[in-house]
Amino acid sequence: MSYRARLRVRFADVDHGRVMYFPKILHYFHQALEDFFADDLGFPMPGLMDRDRVGLPIVHAEVDYRRPFRFGDEMDVELRVVRVSANSVRYEFTGRHAGDERPDCRAWIQAACIDMDRFAARVFPDDLRVALEARLEPTQPRLAKRG
Amino acid sequence: MSYRARLRVRFADVDHGRVMYFPKILHYFHQALEDFFADDLGFPMPGLMDRDRVGLPIVHAEVDYRRPFRFGDEMDVELRVVRVSANSVRYEFTGRHAGDERPDCRAWIQAACIDMDRFAARVFPDDLRVALEARLEPTQPRLAKRG
Amino acid sequence: MSYRARLRVRFADVDHGRVMYFPKILHYFHQALEDFFADDLGFPMPGLMDRDRVGLPIVHAEVDYRRPFRFGDEMDVELRVVRVSANSVRYEFTGRHAGDERPDCRAWIQAACIDMDRFAARVFPDDLRVALEARLEPTQPRLAKRG
Amino acid sequence: MSYRARLRVRFADVDHGRVMYFPKILHYFHQALEDFFADDLGFPMPGLMDRDRVGLPIVHAEVDYRRPFRFGDEMDVELRVVRVSANSVRYEFTGRHAGDERPDCRAWIQAACIDMDRFAARVFPDDLRVALEARLEPTQPRLAKRG
Repeated sequence: MSYRARLRVRFADVDHGRVMYFPKILHYFHQALEDFFADDLGFPMPGLMDRDRVGLPIVHAEVDYRRPFRFGDEMDVELRVVRVSANSVRYEFTGRHAGDERPDCRAWIQAACIDMDRFAARVFPDDLRVALEARLEPTQPRLAKRG
Repeated sequence: MSYRARLRVRFADVDHGRVMYFPKILHYFHQALEDFFADDLGFPMPGLMDRDRVGLPIVHAEVDYRRPFRFGDEMDVELRVVRVSANSVRYEFTGRHAGDERPDCRAWIQAACIDMDRFAARVFPDDLRVALEARLEPTQPRLAKRG
Repeated sequence: MSYRARLRVRFADVDHGRVMYFPKILHYFHQALEDFFADDLGFPMPGLMDRDRVGLPIVHAEVDYRRPFRFGDEMDVELRVVRVSANSVRYEFTGRHAGDERPDCRAWIQAACIDMDRFAARVFPDDLRVALEARLEPTQPRLAKRG
Repeated sequence: MSYRARLRVRFADVDHGRVMYFPKILHYFHQALEDFFADDLGFPMPGLMDRDRVGLPIVHAEVDYRRPFRFGDEMDVELRVVRVSANSVRYEFTGRHAGDERPDCRAWIQAACIDMDRFAARVFPDDLRVALEARLEPTQPRLAKRG
């Protein structure tokens, strides 16, 4: 039931150390999230935000980085919905080098639900909450630290 | 003893919701870290990496977002060194809207020390570890969640 | 013979005006270029740079922007090789909203060929020059300005 | 009368070739433009866009890259207003390595004036046009190409 996406690590997304810049991994995970909403969940974010006035700003993020990604690598992203409440959702993302089962980075990202006009908390629209709950899966463990 | 920097939120760094894109806050914090190394600690990162072959890749990051930043806002960044071991360091960053005492986001970022030639763990050079330890400060609490 | 790619405009890639930030269009075009080298031309850039020590830095770029791209839009990119000399190549990129024939932005990007070890000009490797020449196409006109 | 800014090249803004990614130079120039509007011209862009509903989208950009910028370099930016019409403005940017008189990159960027509500062309507000005209300067030559 996990959502899967494959992304290619871009020339611009590595840093001076020639590995993927650490905030860019969150950007890659968010791209997978956008595609999950559009292609799997059936709630493309542009319409959700602009027509329905529902925003999903991030209130917490947490990432374990274990093995670096480099220019040209293919990153397999696995996205899980691991917690849904009336007005917040927690996603778990795992990044792997294509063709490798080992998780190379893992992130947990929590979003609140807000009314875009007031930029204030609101509960999820019912159909969106139901769709998210239908995809609930257990969370996976943190990755052992290198440092 | 905290290191302070002021950054202006840029036209490009907000997302479709017109608030700062959540990974960009980590990018702003890392810019403050680069300036801390260059201007305060006395170990500019380019020399550290290219001449001394010492890299400091991020192995863990964690961020609480409480109040959004918008285009044109001034962000005051406070950087603390909150843990130093033989081969890793943990920084704490707090972002505030200029002129406001309340923390609007807070992050903890942990870096390992590696040998750039082997991309493998090593202990800190002595002078760098001593300089980091001299700036040790207590950590501050997590920010209450909105979601 | 043009190379075609489709890219989705991302949540993060619009600016405060809620249209794609103008340098990001060059970034999208460069992503198409990376895929062209890897998937069509048969010279993936990571190997070209790291193993063959051949770099292709941009020496000139020029872009006409006519109709904006917004979050969620699909951008069809058409890439043409429009000039090849012994040590430089000129690409033309056209961006269109998916399903629309009209060009919405067009760019010309010129790259030099360098030796990565000396960061100095060199001629193309023969096989790369031959592959680029085989894809030569006529250039297309500039887009009428709005301003 | 040129506007001057100094920017530090960031860890994240170089590419796999370890030189500044070519679209990032336009991003650095736009940051200088934002500061020029806020600190020199007296029309901070957030107010101009949100309160006055005046937008200045880019319709053309052109860049000559001659000498690369690397992580840690200081870039001196010189900004000139080189053409003003009723509804468009052309800026010229020159980037230099700090302490060096030679231009290392030069860009020309043309913006239109639009009504943000209709996203359609309009003439400049009088006070903004007058302020821009007061800063008019002659344009400088293109930089010789490497390629």
